[in-house]
Amino acid sequence: MDISYRLADIAAQLGGRVLGDTGVRISQIATLEKAQPNQISFLTNSKYRAQLVTTKAGAIILGQADMDSTDLPRIISDNPYAYFAKVSAMLNPLPEAKPGVHPGAVIGANARIDPTASIAAMAAIGEGATIGAFSVIGEGCCIGANTTIGSHARLYPGVVIYHDCVIGDNLIAHSGAVIGSDGFGIAMDEGRWVKIPQIGRVVIGNDVEIGANTTIDRGALDDTVIEDGVKLDNQIQVAHNVRIGAHTAIAGCVGIAGSATIGSYCRIGGSAGILGHLQIADHVEISSFTLVGKSIKEPGSYSGIFPFSSNDDWRRNAVHLRHLDDLVKRVKTLEREIALLKGSDE
Amino acid sequence: MDISYRLADIAAQLGGRVLGDTGVRISQIATLEKAQPNQISFLTNSKYRAQLVTTKAGAIILGQADMDSTDLPRIISDNPYAYFAKVSAMLNPLPEAKPGVHPGAVIGANARIDPTASIAAMAAIGEGATIGAFSVIGEGCCIGANTTIGSHARLYPGVVIYHDCVIGDNLIAHSGAVIGSDGFGIAMDEGRWVKIPQIGRVVIGNDVEIGANTTIDRGALDDTVIEDGVKLDNQIQVAHNVRIGAHTAIAGCVGIAGSATIGSYCRIGGSAGILGHLQIADHVEISSFTLVGKSIKEPGSYSGIFPFSSNDDWRRNAVHLRHLDDLVKRVKTLEREIALLKGSDE
Amino acid sequence: MDISYRLADIAAQLGGRVLGDTGVRISQIATLEKAQPNQISFLTNSKYRAQLVTTKAGAIILGQADMDSTDLPRIISDNPYAYFAKVSAMLNPLPEAKPGVHPGAVIGANARIDPTASIAAMAAIGEGATIGAFSVIGEGCCIGANTTIGSHARLYPGVVIYHDCVIGDNLIAHSGAVIGSDGFGIAMDEGRWVKIPQIGRVVIGNDVEIGANTTIDRGALDDTVIEDGVKLDNQIQVAHNVRIGAHTAIAGCVGIAGSATIGSYCRIGGSAGILGHLQIADHVEISSFTLVGKSIKEPGSYSGIFPFSSNDDWRRNAVHLRHLDDLVKRVKTLEREIALLKGSDE
Repeated sequence: MDISYRLADIAAQLGGRVLGDTGVRISQIATLEKAQPNQISFLTNSKYRAQLVTTKAGAIILGQADMDSTDLPRIISDNPYAYFAKVSAMLNPLPEAKPGVHPGAVIGANARIDPTASIAAMAAIGEGATIGAFSVIGEGCCIGANTTIGSHARLYPGVVIYHDCVIGDNLIAHSGAVIGSDGFGIAMDEGRWVKIPQIGRVVIGNDVEIGANTTIDRGALDDTVIEDGVKLDNQIQVAHNVRIGAHTAIAGCVGIAGSATIGSYCRIGGSAGILGHLQIADHVEISSFTLVGKSIKEPGSYSGIFPFSSNDDWRRNAVHLRHLDDLVKRVKTLEREIALLKGSDE
Repeated sequence: MDISYRLADIAAQLGGRVLGDTGVRISQIATLEKAQPNQISFLTNSKYRAQLVTTKAGAIILGQADMDSTDLPRIISDNPYAYFAKVSAMLNPLPEAKPGVHPGAVIGANARIDPTASIAAMAAIGEGATIGAFSVIGEGCCIGANTTIGSHARLYPGVVIYHDCVIGDNLIAHSGAVIGSDGFGIAMDEGRWVKIPQIGRVVIGNDVEIGANTTIDRGALDDTVIEDGVKLDNQIQVAHNVRIGAHTAIAGCVGIAGSATIGSYCRIGGSAGILGHLQIADHVEISSFTLVGKSIKEPGSYSGIFPFSSNDDWRRNAVHLRHLDDLVKRVKTLEREIALLKGSDE
Repeated sequence: MDISYRLADIAAQLGGRVLGDTGVRISQIATLEKAQPNQISFLTNSKYRAQLVTTKAGAIILGQADMDSTDLPRIISDNPYAYFAKVSAMLNPLPEAKPGVHPGAVIGANARIDPTASIAAMAAIGEGATIGAFSVIGEGCCIGANTTIGSHARLYPGVVIYHDCVIGDNLIAHSGAVIGSDGFGIAMDEGRWVKIPQIGRVVIGNDVEIGANTTIDRGALDDTVIEDGVKLDNQIQVAHNVRIGAHTAIAGCVGIAGSATIGSYCRIGGSAGILGHLQIADHVEISSFTLVGKSIKEPGSYSGIFPFSSNDDWRRNAVHLRHLDDLVKRVKTLEREIALLKGSDE
């Protein structure tokens, strides 16, 4: 577990230019404030620049523009934030899981589990399911019948994937995530709801991460689709037949209603909502807490947040929202009257 | 698994009038766009009518008004959407679960499990709990002590129901649903919170569906009640002592605070919120993302959504919300001044 | 299971002054409306005072000001709501869990489990984890490697705590809670997201309660911290590096974005949101559904709720929100013109 690298080793592996002592040995990454001499830190936000003077870090990752901001040993990168991520990954590899099926797991008939995969105790792999090479299925995970999971997946304890789903390589799914549950499809019939069977699947591309307690419903007829590189935070609800485009990142607690289509490279803030059957273009940013109630056809940044204030101020102002239409009419009346008065003056 | 029906078989079972070849054999249901000749499709939304010309479907379900919109073999129904749901259920029966208790399940003393019920591996049935006929308890489900579940329930893997709850027949509960957890009851006492024991139960009627990761808290003193036919989507939070009336349908991510009472046949949109101790009449529709902050006594549709726009527009407009009261006062002043001016002109 | 106390016993244990027959025997607590002669009730909200006349309760808990509102045997307390909580706890002790490790649990190497602790079937305790005295770990819970849980914890079935977390004494965690999952940290690198390893921990103080399906992410570099006495309801999302101050209570469905710092003794309403990197002072109250978009430096109550109304009213009023800036400009123009007219009149 004692991993360390010299600056030169890091640059050899990740690129970037080393300035200063290339032999400094680094065993962990930390903030400028907390880093110790055997640790590397980074400057990716100029508001922390003053900390370059006081930091005890052994080395710093910096962008080109900041390359002269410190005399400490340093690595210069075009993208210091991504560089920091990669250095951290070098220094903090995931613990290896022992290949094989734990005797306390339950494996269905005709399941195909790669011998390099690891199936933990209390996991259940359904009939005909496939688990790819080097995938790790945590304690208490349930994989439904005929579901296929690619290679190098990591399912933390308690993930449930229903039957017949198709998952690419490198999935990370956190505890409590549910994939492939029934979409919310009901039809009213003589005073009672009739359930509409949800016979679509969830199809997930490669390199997707799914946060804790996030839910992704299977499609009603066609599939729910999560494209390559999508990153979903915790407690997101993805309804049936949604499509999320490649490399879109969605923060926690977002709700996406049925059949919404979200483009690629979108960024959606926490607790936002997207109504059903809408289409959102590529490269759209949605602010936290914004409800998207109609399609967005142009890339750009969109907001719809009601501003907060002290209760007293809020009460004073919000009461008028219920009478805005009256107010607008009163202003119109004033405009007419002014025009008349001005006319009568001329 | 190879199920198929002739149109005549379907109509014999579900009613409706067949026009055209009654012998067409149908093995699946699909959208107009994707249906194949051995599949049936449906028209329930007029915006898809043009697809009737190009569809490859072997048969169509239509309403009375559309009965002449195609020459394809077809079934005419008063309620084509519900008909579609029922045909899909005929064609897509749930996989049967093997009756009996899996040896990897853990059964408490004095639990009564109907011999036709199916208890999967890693399920835990508490002391004195009752599982009704033909109910299916999935992997990793936990049923608390003395909880009663009726017949024909289907609990997907990882559902938890706490002790002493009462559940009717035909429950469907999706993975990660938690029923009967403690309500949020605390009392401040000399700078510390004291927990208020939650000694009520959750009582659920017949024909209820509960979505993935939805939570329903037990009552503080009296019970939390979900009446017959209620349909709850994913990630809904139902606080203690809430009552939800029969056949109400609630979309994902809705939060319902303590002791709120919701009528029958309501429809509540995704991510809406209902404050505590409110009462909502029968047949009320609430839009997605709307916060209901006072009781609703009349049936009808209600909204409270802040409209979104581009960040620039939003910033320009939203800043004024904090000064609406001033604006209203300025308009009042203008009205007075105009009145004076008009008076002085006369 | 048959617990009962005389009023005198209760007062001897909890304080308060008994008026009337101190020998009344009490076996349960109930509302004024439902209480029976062997039950105690309470008056903590004056709107229920009329029920004092009709209640069948055997005794009542009252505040000083209400001590003469009934002739029933009664206990007078300075804080009748907290007193009610404590009486209920006396009458409704948690069922005891049998100490020891169920043979169906899976215990990692070098885990230290206090002999008084109870580990249920299908629980998994990771390598090097510590479970303190009298702690109860429910069915299907997973405790990660090297995580430490103090004494008297109660984890309901299906709680997951990831590796290396530190939990104080008296934790209550409800089913589906996930503690220590990865924070949402990603860096864009040439069109792809690179994962930022989340190497901080979750550190939780004493006397914390965590609701069903609530998620608390581990820190990116430093820790996520939940201080003593914090009470979290269901389905709350706590992002990485958040700090929640002591004795703060947060209602269901709240989302707290990364690195937000919340003070002590705050109360946050349901479905509220707090953006990242903000600071909220001690003793702040946030209304339900309010988005906090900037730091709050003063104690007080804050709101930001868009008021709901009938769809028709809403449509009529909300349309103007997109043109508020125009409206303000029109009012300014009117003010100028009035000033000119008044000038020309003088």
